[in-house]
Amino acid sequence: MKKLCEDIANAIGNAIRGYIGADGGERILYMGADGTPTAMIDDVAERAALHVLKNDGRSLRLVSEEMGDVILGTNPEFDIVLDPLDGTYNALRGIPFYSVSIAIGKNDLSQIYYGYVKNLVTGDVYAAERDRGAFLNGEKIRVSTRKDTDAYCASIYGCAFARDFLNQNGKKVRLLGSAALELCYVASQKLDAFLDVRSRLRVTDVAAGKLIVEEAGGVVTDDFGVQLNNPLTIKERVNIMASNGRIHDDLLARLREWNK
Amino acid sequence: MKKLCEDIANAIGNAIRGYIGADGGERILYMGADGTPTAMIDDVAERAALHVLKNDGRSLRLVSEEMGDVILGTNPEFDIVLDPLDGTYNALRGIPFYSVSIAIGKNDLSQIYYGYVKNLVTGDVYAAERDRGAFLNGEKIRVSTRKDTDAYCASIYGCAFARDFLNQNGKKVRLLGSAALELCYVASQKLDAFLDVRSRLRVTDVAAGKLIVEEAGGVVTDDFGVQLNNPLTIKERVNIMASNGRIHDDLLARLREWNK
Repeated sequence: MKKLCEDIANAIGNAIRGYIGADGGERILYMGADGTPTAMIDDVAERAALHVLKNDGRSLRLVSEEMGDVILGTNPEFDIVLDPLDGTYNALRGIPFYSVSIAIGKNDLSQIYYGYVKNLVTGDVYAAERDRGAFLNGEKIRVSTRKDTDAYCASIYGCAFARDFLNQNGKKVRLLGSAALELCYVASQKLDAFLDVRSRLRVTDVAAGKLIVEEAGGVVTDDFGVQLNNPLTIKERVNIMASNGRIHDDLLARLREWNK
Repeated sequence: MKKLCEDIANAIGNAIRGYIGADGGERILYMGADGTPTAMIDDVAERAALHVLKNDGRSLRLVSEEMGDVILGTNPEFDIVLDPLDGTYNALRGIPFYSVSIAIGKNDLSQIYYGYVKNLVTGDVYAAERDRGAFLNGEKIRVSTRKDTDAYCASIYGCAFARDFLNQNGKKVRLLGSAALELCYVASQKLDAFLDVRSRLRVTDVAAGKLIVEEAGGVVTDDFGVQLNNPLTIKERVNIMASNGRIHDDLLARLREWNK
């Protein structure tokens, strides 16, 4: 699985190189399966991944951002949930924060058993296998140990209390623009939490990162504190709260307060 | 001037290396001149800069984040406005976005004549000399040409309309955590605007970036659209709006609406 993911990530990295921070890549080609416009750079990335998967020859079900759900071969062994380029906008503008996200599993988000996210700028690889821990470039990673009362740093998309954070000493907000990679930042102590409650994300954005956070000792739920088990289909929308676990209840309480 | 800035930036880059994403650097040593706690990593960065300046031997007035205002020598020729490490929190957490910011001028923000910002992760150098243009690694840069009606991407700190942006198609918010570098992103078309209205920033954060944006063809004002001429002292607080010029009025109007 690891080898297949590496091949996909390398192929995508090579394919998009000419479009980073350059004109042309942003040209809209068609409406993607996820309901958002597919830019040239997204199409190029997805084709590169598909080429690798077809050459590999295994039968599988692919869930990908632009193509949607596709069956390869005649007897799918597993599902691959792929975001060929997470952080498209960053890549087009030359902001060095974008990634490829690949998850392998069956049926729904709770049954992902392998997750792989590669930072296409630095080459850092975050990976996790169910019950075997999470790793950054082969080194074991753990979530942070910061608690409610400490300073903490979170990515918060789509709710007003992000603004309170900006004005409180000690608490910080970052909006970096690649959900898959921001989840890996939670897994590796660079952030203490990631929260997106815009009903915008897809399973393709979070499937790999969710497992990586969990295997690093963190907690991932929806915005009501319930386990995620969204079906692996591109139509599905996901709200997500991922944290080091220790600040999870504090964040849920803030969110409840805000929703009142 | 360029040589002096390079020497300072290199010395800082070397000095902080051991503290990136590692324990220890966050230890608070004392209360800095800017009124915020000085962490180990800030102190190390500032000392490295001061060492270079003392060796250089020129007489100057230094305005720096932790030490405040200091006179070197007996007959200061100019002011150096220094943020030895902009994005301290990122550096401590291992988020790859932090910089050194150096500006040279006299009296107030309107009289800066040289600006230099180095991304300490990628090594990219943004520099501008008054009336001579702005450069990224020696190549001329220009702000973006996006207009009000286009999609645009801004860093917005401290006002509620950032949330509206997060929920509008086409408009994007990034919070990257280094004001000096985010200003350079406006100068080099990676962002269309940068806005911080928290009354939190210092002249040390913005002095270099302001000139770099202006020399790249952009516009920089306070949050009321007025030219910045804050005195070069560490006590001063700055609100700032920097943009490609074309969306400046739109942003000012949104801010007025929000302030009602």
